[in-house]
Amino acid sequence: MSSIRVMPLGGMGNVTQNMFLYQVDQQILIVDCGIGFPDHHMPGADLLIPDISYLHQLLEQGNTIAGMVLSHGHEDHIGALGYILPELPEFPIFAVPFTAAFAQKRLEDKGARGSVTPVHDETHLQISPTFSVEFVQVTHSVPETRHLIIRTPAGTIYHGSDFKLDPHPVDGKVSQLDRIGQLASEGIDLMTIDCLRVESADWTKSESTVGPSIETTMRETKGKYIITLMSSHIHRIQQTIDAADKCGRKITFVGRSVEQNMEIALSLGEAHIPKGMQIDKRDIQNTADDKLCVVIAGSQGQEGSSLVRAVFGEHPVIQIAEHDTVVFSASAIPGNELPYYAAIDELCKNGVHVVYPDILKTLHQSGHASTPEQQELLGLVKPTYVMPIGGADRHRVKFLEFVAEPLGYTKDAVLLPNSGEVLELSASGPKVVESVHLKPRIVDGLGIGDVGPVVLSDRKALSEAGIIVVVVPRVKGQFRPKDIRVISKGFVFMKEADDVIEFITSTTAELLTTFKKKTSDEKLRRSIEHTLSRKLFKIIRREPLVVMVIADTA
Amino acid sequence: MSSIRVMPLGGMGNVTQNMFLYQVDQQILIVDCGIGFPDHHMPGADLLIPDISYLHQLLEQGNTIAGMVLSHGHEDHIGALGYILPELPEFPIFAVPFTAAFAQKRLEDKGARGSVTPVHDETHLQISPTFSVEFVQVTHSVPETRHLIIRTPAGTIYHGSDFKLDPHPVDGKVSQLDRIGQLASEGIDLMTIDCLRVESADWTKSESTVGPSIETTMRETKGKYIITLMSSHIHRIQQTIDAADKCGRKITFVGRSVEQNMEIALSLGEAHIPKGMQIDKRDIQNTADDKLCVVIAGSQGQEGSSLVRAVFGEHPVIQIAEHDTVVFSASAIPGNELPYYAAIDELCKNGVHVVYPDILKTLHQSGHASTPEQQELLGLVKPTYVMPIGGADRHRVKFLEFVAEPLGYTKDAVLLPNSGEVLELSASGPKVVESVHLKPRIVDGLGIGDVGPVVLSDRKALSEAGIIVVVVPRVKGQFRPKDIRVISKGFVFMKEADDVIEFITSTTAELLTTFKKKTSDEKLRRSIEHTLSRKLFKIIRREPLVVMVIADTA
Repeated sequence: MSSIRVMPLGGMGNVTQNMFLYQVDQQILIVDCGIGFPDHHMPGADLLIPDISYLHQLLEQGNTIAGMVLSHGHEDHIGALGYILPELPEFPIFAVPFTAAFAQKRLEDKGARGSVTPVHDETHLQISPTFSVEFVQVTHSVPETRHLIIRTPAGTIYHGSDFKLDPHPVDGKVSQLDRIGQLASEGIDLMTIDCLRVESADWTKSESTVGPSIETTMRETKGKYIITLMSSHIHRIQQTIDAADKCGRKITFVGRSVEQNMEIALSLGEAHIPKGMQIDKRDIQNTADDKLCVVIAGSQGQEGSSLVRAVFGEHPVIQIAEHDTVVFSASAIPGNELPYYAAIDELCKNGVHVVYPDILKTLHQSGHASTPEQQELLGLVKPTYVMPIGGADRHRVKFLEFVAEPLGYTKDAVLLPNSGEVLELSASGPKVVESVHLKPRIVDGLGIGDVGPVVLSDRKALSEAGIIVVVVPRVKGQFRPKDIRVISKGFVFMKEADDVIEFITSTTAELLTTFKKKTSDEKLRRSIEHTLSRKLFKIIRREPLVVMVIADTA
Repeated sequence: MSSIRVMPLGGMGNVTQNMFLYQVDQQILIVDCGIGFPDHHMPGADLLIPDISYLHQLLEQGNTIAGMVLSHGHEDHIGALGYILPELPEFPIFAVPFTAAFAQKRLEDKGARGSVTPVHDETHLQISPTFSVEFVQVTHSVPETRHLIIRTPAGTIYHGSDFKLDPHPVDGKVSQLDRIGQLASEGIDLMTIDCLRVESADWTKSESTVGPSIETTMRETKGKYIITLMSSHIHRIQQTIDAADKCGRKITFVGRSVEQNMEIALSLGEAHIPKGMQIDKRDIQNTADDKLCVVIAGSQGQEGSSLVRAVFGEHPVIQIAEHDTVVFSASAIPGNELPYYAAIDELCKNGVHVVYPDILKTLHQSGHASTPEQQELLGLVKPTYVMPIGGADRHRVKFLEFVAEPLGYTKDAVLLPNSGEVLELSASGPKVVESVHLKPRIVDGLGIGDVGPVVLSDRKALSEAGIIVVVVPRVKGQFRPKDIRVISKGFVFMKEADDVIEFITSTTAELLTTFKKKTSDEKLRRSIEHTLSRKLFKIIRREPLVVMVIADTA
């Protein structure tokens, strides 16, 4: 038996940036290609993409990419395609038709080459002599989510990314537990499994429990019913359409992401709107408020989103009036509370009726499996080894404690590699065979990867105490201390900072006299910068970046 | 009848920075003097203090400060004393002994003058001919919390800041509902009331429900039991002491805030440790791990806190081992999820057993009243007018909907002033008589108030895309385009940015030739900065601050 190498390029302990490599016999299968979301340590970063340098290394060593399979249509599983594909040789990409259409759209948006092949026979997809893949249907917060059974000469893998076990999904397509049980009886060597919601001991409520709350709040609404939610959550949008239909309201979609997603969902039959019910968003103002239901993007209160522009009265087609109701059918993503609640506060202040999950819990249900659901799936698949994925480090560790150990798994059978570690699974068991230093690849504007740790740490320092630039002219090798100029940004308000500027100018002039003629510019600069920083900190307890520039002229 | 003016100097819709002015007959009573916590829009800010410019204005108009009363010992009610008192004339400050001791400590820490008088007869405190105050005991998350009944010739005010109605408080001192009912029967004209937790429909659980979870987790712990919590939460610390006593563990306190607070609590009899049970933190390493309970500061994962230093192996007296248990008896404060969960993730990664409220809910209970408790108190006090305080805008608005309206209050009787509005309550009812522009006063290092909107917006811009400084030497009035120097920080990594630097240099040199001789330096500078910004954005879609400096020498 040959061996399987496993490597998550987005890192372990990261919830997003999903991109997994499975390598067998010089062949590589990639699962997913998602973006990550930068945190406050990465100011200015737009998004993160997986670090594929290890993949490049494998290619240089003579391995080839057999293909890529996409599990479902969320951004953190397909959103990096447009960035990553141009950096790699061509290979086939597969997904079920709905996911393929979502992914294709991402590629078009970025103007990237490549196409995603829609898979119709899900029971047997032969990607290369080495890899064949079978898709199994599971429930999640985007339609047509799949788990993958990957058969290789070195063993069988169950790739169990995002899922929940919803007994009553909106489209009626329940998770195929019977089939999973059957397939698993062939023997699964390695299973990866979504552990994000391991902190919850209660079976995640069905998505279909959200619909009644949407309908109830809609019936109580006097003016426009405006609902914001994750724009890929087609089933929740379907429940909104159904409620609007019952309440005699027209429906319209506002926001690029929700408009695009609904176009795809409608064209593929994943969503349905009764004839004549949908109106163009430009007709909002020609429709009576109490006959209108608006689905709008921006449920996290994102700056620049349609919702936030509407909240602040800056949206071209939708005005929010006092008799309207705005419903947040999404909770704040941890770390994103400020903009989320700022939007709610602003609406409340303006006298608009707002309903959100903190006051009506049933307005949102998670798309992820809780502890008992993870146990149910693990107990069904019964892999030899299991590796929790899709969660932070605490979730992976608690998976061992709450999910695997109660089912009899020992510590050795639950794989918790560190970020960057390459696992090899062979007849003798799993071991770490390599450790790669994964760097977060930041997309900032049109630049990819040029914002690294140095730039980020400068940005952090700049944001905390600003910068002071000391310009020292030097003419024909002679410093001109009388002509020193000091500029500061983000430190103190310059118009009120005469004393500080005077202090820096005179200190620099004084320091210049203490150096020997032979001192290198570099050394002199560093020494003055260091001394100024220290003195400023003593005076005002702040640490601005201090930069000295020698302005040389002949 | 004269009138009462009411003004929260910390602003409405702010949860923290509590400082209320009540003005009657040229006399001012101040209630509380707290700090606020800066958010991500205020990088580098250490803390916020109330804007007292309106108070200065009142003093200039001939009003005088009769005194200040402190409701309880939390930082957002007493923490700004050391900053604010030096800016005001002297006046007496009152609080019950425990709160007075906490406040006195804050003053000493800042080296500020002033003393807080401990009040022993709580039923009648005559502060001036205009104001007399009666204290009533309520439950909260710090001992000896009080509500205030403020009697004035213009009417009676019930000042109901932070509280919950805990039927089984740890110290047995329940909220004095009977007395409140009696006092209220005299007639309350205006009530302020803590509305922070109005989103919760369930009666807030008793603090005494936390103790059993502490004891259970302690019994299961093989090594050291390390618990982190809000360092002013004396009753939770008492429950920890009691559990440690039962489990035969010694107790010690680590972290300046928790050490100081416990010293005060023990000296005033608000906490009790059996003889011989407390050890010095320097004796941790001389005590068997399984005989040790450590209460450590840093429950929000604050950078530099004792807990975080211990987590990263950088604390001088405490090492965390794999067999230890670390218990977070505090939830993440909204907006603070990142550092909080980073500490938990790091411990999990290191194999330490961690328990936190997400996996054991009973490890934390709020100190604030939910909807039914707010209703209970409002129904008891039956004021003519009620003003929700201590919450964000959404909480104030939902107070009207969930608490006041169900009790028969009309919109007119529920006062929801905007931030900065001064309310006057007279025989003809309440009206806004003045509107003050409240500025957030930022404490940054040793500077107070010198970091304003311009500096903050620069810091934000700097953090998002960095800065580019273009230095153009000019000798005897002649520009030296060949000697242009470009420095960037936080933009791109300089060593990889030759092209960008070259582009900026040559563009600047080119632009310099396009100006007429008479163009002012200011205009030339602005024009070049603007053009460079625009061109850079086109190329790379980023917006660094661009600063041009003319380095003049004669």
